[in-house]
Amino acid sequence: MKKYQVIGIGNAMVDVLSYADDAMLARHDITKGVMQLIDMPRAVALYSHIGSAQEVSGGSAANSIAAIAHLGGRTAYVGKVCDDQLGAIFAHDLRAQGAVYETKMAPMDGAQETGRCIVLVTPDGERTLNTYLGWSEFLTAGDIITDDMAQAEWIYLEGYRFDGPESHAAFSKAIAACKGASGKVSITLSDPFCVERHRAAFLAMIRADADLLFANHAEMVSLYQTETLEEALAHAAQDVEIVACTDGANGAFVIANGQRWHIDAIPTQIKDATGAGDLFAGAFLWAITNGHSYETAGKMGCIAAAEVISHIGARPQQSLRDLFVAHRVL
Amino acid sequence: MKKYQVIGIGNAMVDVLSYADDAMLARHDITKGVMQLIDMPRAVALYSHIGSAQEVSGGSAANSIAAIAHLGGRTAYVGKVCDDQLGAIFAHDLRAQGAVYETKMAPMDGAQETGRCIVLVTPDGERTLNTYLGWSEFLTAGDIITDDMAQAEWIYLEGYRFDGPESHAAFSKAIAACKGASGKVSITLSDPFCVERHRAAFLAMIRADADLLFANHAEMVSLYQTETLEEALAHAAQDVEIVACTDGANGAFVIANGQRWHIDAIPTQIKDATGAGDLFAGAFLWAITNGHSYETAGKMGCIAAAEVISHIGARPQQSLRDLFVAHRVL
Repeated sequence: MKKYQVIGIGNAMVDVLSYADDAMLARHDITKGVMQLIDMPRAVALYSHIGSAQEVSGGSAANSIAAIAHLGGRTAYVGKVCDDQLGAIFAHDLRAQGAVYETKMAPMDGAQETGRCIVLVTPDGERTLNTYLGWSEFLTAGDIITDDMAQAEWIYLEGYRFDGPESHAAFSKAIAACKGASGKVSITLSDPFCVERHRAAFLAMIRADADLLFANHAEMVSLYQTETLEEALAHAAQDVEIVACTDGANGAFVIANGQRWHIDAIPTQIKDATGAGDLFAGAFLWAITNGHSYETAGKMGCIAAAEVISHIGARPQQSLRDLFVAHRVL
Repeated sequence: MKKYQVIGIGNAMVDVLSYADDAMLARHDITKGVMQLIDMPRAVALYSHIGSAQEVSGGSAANSIAAIAHLGGRTAYVGKVCDDQLGAIFAHDLRAQGAVYETKMAPMDGAQETGRCIVLVTPDGERTLNTYLGWSEFLTAGDIITDDMAQAEWIYLEGYRFDGPESHAAFSKAIAACKGASGKVSITLSDPFCVERHRAAFLAMIRADADLLFANHAEMVSLYQTETLEEALAHAAQDVEIVACTDGANGAFVIANGQRWHIDAIPTQIKDATGAGDLFAGAFLWAITNGHSYETAGKMGCIAAAEVISHIGARPQQSLRDLFVAHRVL
């Protein structure tokens, strides 16, 4: 048995969650529903304009890893924070959930801080992400411990990291070490505009190395530049062994071994969509590494996603295991 | 018209909210339902044992002031934070709500940090407070700007501050400046064990200076060392012009001008009791400084308290004004 079921690699950050309306987004030139990168001056300016907030550990892959740990999975995370209060919060929340998180925290030097994401939640429950990457941007190949990657059944690569200058070398090193020890590679597309910025690099890595592709509707059509999700899914099924694509209120599609399943979404009142895809991926990976079928994994993904959008914040607040039992998939 | 309806003085801190069960509290020798002071090593040790958390600005008087600002009141806050990330969060959240908060943030020197309170919420909704005062402990008379106090219709003094070494001098200076300009003084008892530690000082200040006393059942009985709340209320009515005492699910008692009202609690499912008393006091002060009757002020206090215990965190998440309208008190 390998030491880890899943190791995630992503942008480590703390979410700063606040409510906003569409007019506020428009006033500050913020594109609704997606992730935009901001620098520190913009982060400071934007923060001064938002209402009171709450701080919760976030980071897309970190949310997935937290969900796997929450479910009792053997999991670890790679991503960089500074030795500051937000870094301590991020590290605590991952470890408290049971994930292995070993990072050499960068000392505070004033030039960098732990990354944060100003999450603006609109009345419709949609979330709009304004990300100051901070120290998380500087993940390099030197941060990848090959012995750990070789000890992972799966690695899980966060698409947002394609924005980092040295992320490609880091991902390549992780993939080589993992595959060299017969491990498998999953990639999540993260965001349609991120896909737009790095389409060629995404496609190359997906075609060469991915065993499992996570995406949502917008990301999938952005990747393959198709009119419809159907066309994009057809392309993806050619490129990757397993495709798991969420589609909002329409649930999710899972394609594997020439079979295809549509999973209904769990009806819920959306309070904050942050983390829906992350929790889907976390539950899905936990499921398949625990011997569940792809269809069951998709159902568990939809249940976990429904849990996390029913409250503020991107980490589970109820027992996902209890929810799986209640929905008779466990 | 004075510049401020209410100025609050208290311990500035960020709440670290996490769930725990009674066994966990027992294992760590934590007395349920009250506030205990902890030092930094204890804070670090305790933090390493709690589950993943969320960070929300707190501080008892700061919660009350945030509620007044939320209601549109003219209000300011005095309490000390460091120039660190938690200090920035605390300052932002008060100002974003509309309160005036001018503090000279202490530079980070490693010896002190912004105060924090590890709030452990048990399945019954009760909250247990573990407070590392940090820099908030060092509020001195030098931090009190007498011109501001003279510009306050009311000042609101947090009982927790009686634990600070120089708090008495600071309170005395604030009281003198406020009363010297015909302002009024309200005091909240904060915690039964805090009252126990400083009973004589509390009684002296209440009898000499308080125009309005806030307390809950346990604090009131602790102050007057009586068997019953009735006896304690009788004493309090002798000592102070206005008495506002919350009593959990039994609502609240308001005594003023020789009259007495019992206000029913608003039925609600308690998710986290943190801030119930703070929101009661904030809404009560906003009400009486806006010309509402004492009875209406008590009702508004109970409505605000019910809002804050229906979710995690001690700051209002719904519009209190809308709730007052819905309950036909506004």
